[in-house]
Amino acid sequence: MSVTDELLKANERYAQTFTLAHLPMPPARKVAVLACMDARLTVEQILGLNTGDAHVIRNAGGIATEDAVRSLLISHYLLGTQEFIIINHTDCGMLTFRDDDLEKRLEKENKTAVVAPVRFHSFTDLKENVGRQIERLHSHPWIPKRLPVRGFIYDVKSGQLQEVEAPGAKLAA
Amino acid sequence: MSVTDELLKANERYAQTFTLAHLPMPPARKVAVLACMDARLTVEQILGLNTGDAHVIRNAGGIATEDAVRSLLISHYLLGTQEFIIINHTDCGMLTFRDDDLEKRLEKENKTAVVAPVRFHSFTDLKENVGRQIERLHSHPWIPKRLPVRGFIYDVKSGQLQEVEAPGAKLAA
Repeated sequence: MSVTDELLKANERYAQTFTLAHLPMPPARKVAVLACMDARLTVEQILGLNTGDAHVIRNAGGIATEDAVRSLLISHYLLGTQEFIIINHTDCGMLTFRDDDLEKRLEKENKTAVVAPVRFHSFTDLKENVGRQIERLHSHPWIPKRLPVRGFIYDVKSGQLQEVEAPGAKLAA
Repeated sequence: MSVTDELLKANERYAQTFTLAHLPMPPARKVAVLACMDARLTVEQILGLNTGDAHVIRNAGGIATEDAVRSLLISHYLLGTQEFIIINHTDCGMLTFRDDDLEKRLEKENKTAVVAPVRFHSFTDLKENVGRQIERLHSHPWIPKRLPVRGFIYDVKSGQLQEVEAPGAKLAA
């Protein structure tokens, strides 16, 4: 039995005691979280969120990519979220490689180059990376300046979030 | 108090009883899930996943965008996942608008056009959309053909997953 089939069995059990049919489409707490895909982050648990509370956007690194911005714009303009939270974390896989090396490896293993993705968004400094993602959202012409965007580092050894100041905050102070 | 501050208080409580410091970086069940950001989907719960089990990638719609493929490549090649699961769901916000209309609205409200995102990936047929995402992953030159990619529709009224056959499966049969 594949893992996928095992998860489908688990879903059958989940559906047997399902009680959430009343939930509406817009997130109850009007917040959108952009976090890393890492298996050690169950975003809803870390933040005490119930199902129905928040949009959760996740990718490798918790990066404010064009696609993450697409999701956040839909979240805010169509479904009414009013606060954005960015979560990166300690011991992230994105700290363990360099974009160029991975691209070369994949070209070699697959015996072909591809047009996209051209960037993997690996990084070397976690705090700096979070600051950069905050700035990316702050500077986007379609993300309202009044909308709070705050960034955090989740410690996979303690379960705690630590806030990261946006680089621009120092300049403005 | 902002919602973000409330969630930070919840995180303090979470960290007080934290017992997951032993989890390694690679997902224990070697699976990566690509799902919609919708607030009604707590992906781990729907699939009976524990923290540490799986990579969870989420965006508006559960679309196999360039960024989702970036995350899946990192998931497979660097962290060893061997199965991919795509989850879309009933009553999705992506069924409620058209790309062109949203782009025009954002241009008008913000009094400016932007270079990106150029696509919002709205869709009109849920089943067809899931099939297309499966095909996008199947056809990617860097995603091994032997790696299972299966797609599902999550019913927000019943909690059940329904499998969607890839369009290519019919042609091959």
